[in-house]
Amino acid sequence: MIDIKEYERIDDLQRDGLCIIQNPKQFCFGMDAVLLSSFVQSKNNSIIVDLGTGSGIIPILLSAKTAAKKIYGIEIQNDIADMANRSILLNKLEDKITIINDDLKNIAEYISECSVDIITSNPPYMKVGTGQISPTRSISRHEIMCSLEDVVAITYKLLKPKGSFFMVHRANRLVDIMFLLRKYKLEPKYLQCVHPFKHKEANLVLIHARKNAGHELKIIDPLIVRHDNGEYTEKIYEIYNNAGITSFR
Amino acid sequence: MIDIKEYERIDDLQRDGLCIIQNPKQFCFGMDAVLLSSFVQSKNNSIIVDLGTGSGIIPILLSAKTAAKKIYGIEIQNDIADMANRSILLNKLEDKITIINDDLKNIAEYISECSVDIITSNPPYMKVGTGQISPTRSISRHEIMCSLEDVVAITYKLLKPKGSFFMVHRANRLVDIMFLLRKYKLEPKYLQCVHPFKHKEANLVLIHARKNAGHELKIIDPLIVRHDNGEYTEKIYEIYNNAGITSFR
Repeated sequence: MIDIKEYERIDDLQRDGLCIIQNPKQFCFGMDAVLLSSFVQSKNNSIIVDLGTGSGIIPILLSAKTAAKKIYGIEIQNDIADMANRSILLNKLEDKITIINDDLKNIAEYISECSVDIITSNPPYMKVGTGQISPTRSISRHEIMCSLEDVVAITYKLLKPKGSFFMVHRANRLVDIMFLLRKYKLEPKYLQCVHPFKHKEANLVLIHARKNAGHELKIIDPLIVRHDNGEYTEKIYEIYNNAGITSFR
Repeated sequence: MIDIKEYERIDDLQRDGLCIIQNPKQFCFGMDAVLLSSFVQSKNNSIIVDLGTGSGIIPILLSAKTAAKKIYGIEIQNDIADMANRSILLNKLEDKITIINDDLKNIAEYISECSVDIITSNPPYMKVGTGQISPTRSISRHEIMCSLEDVVAITYKLLKPKGSFFMVHRANRLVDIMFLLRKYKLEPKYLQCVHPFKHKEANLVLIHARKNAGHELKIIDPLIVRHDNGEYTEKIYEIYNNAGITSFR
């Protein structure tokens, strides 16, 4: 019997019977997690690690999308890691997904260097000192427990040569991201800008970097989220349908 | 009487009676120069410097678009600088535009440090060792006489505090560009990706960086060059019409 706390809810992902436990008072997964999962490309039997996994949404979506050998998610917050663990049990994915409840700076205790095919991350977006810090959501949203540089440095250590790093982040941090990725020899190979509307600034970026790869970027065609009338674009419906998520705001 | 060589041609820019001398065997200005000029924002009475000015197209277009106090263009190739000079004379712009025929590494002999409001550049796109090197076009297209890092380092020296740098470059070099701009404290503030068609990869990027500015980028909505049927988009017609260029391929 899997315990569901009174303040939690179970959301049906409508794919392969998958569901996820979330706490609406903390942080529910958003479009960024779905876009990132959709952006990931993986070969069969890959070892995948999701850094700062939160509710485990990315490992759960990737378990359905990929033929991965094993997916790890690491999450520092005890209650959220516990919730992710219960979602894994609820989905009977315990053979495929392991949640590690620790600081990602300690990940070497669990996973060997140069052993991972794919790393994903939807890291905290905001630098400390920017934006309002909410006590219940701050660790997921602000770089309190880990900076972007921590995520990048750890990714470099864990990845196999030529391994891939997939990240979603705020568009306004693209220079920070590219500077750090180049510095740590995780060369950005693909960039996709996500615009809420066709004629609006991008709010998100999707980046695929590869360890020790050559210096040449492809900027793929932008992803537009909504038509001018507010309706989601066909591309967004396609991404959600492929992820198996049929109800979303 | 301004001398026009037999292998040169005069193109009418159809704005304020402006025209330009070009040598079709070397390098004629392309859409990148027009897009860059359109992308520039300047206050009245600015000092503007165009690094690697070629035929002088960017100073000439900016002389019509802006109320600049003075525009300098620096070009290392003697014959091309001479051609640019004759275009300036033909347009009676010699009070406004000065062409400096020298290596841009010597620019400190002509223009003081921290004295320039705006720097523009449409630099050679290719690293040495990539692409075919054509003997007549190679200095304009390959980083033989100056690297991207030279351009960025010189830009930092010349600009006033908070001065602006506007550049057009190949999309596949965006990481090189962002890395170098951040390294030299020319912070990218605006990025626009230029896609030849809506669903194709970007081939150009337009970047506006500011000296010593804060770390926050805006990725403005992409510029799409052609509709799927091959026609130019309304936005491209608007840019060319604003530049005064009514005939283009």
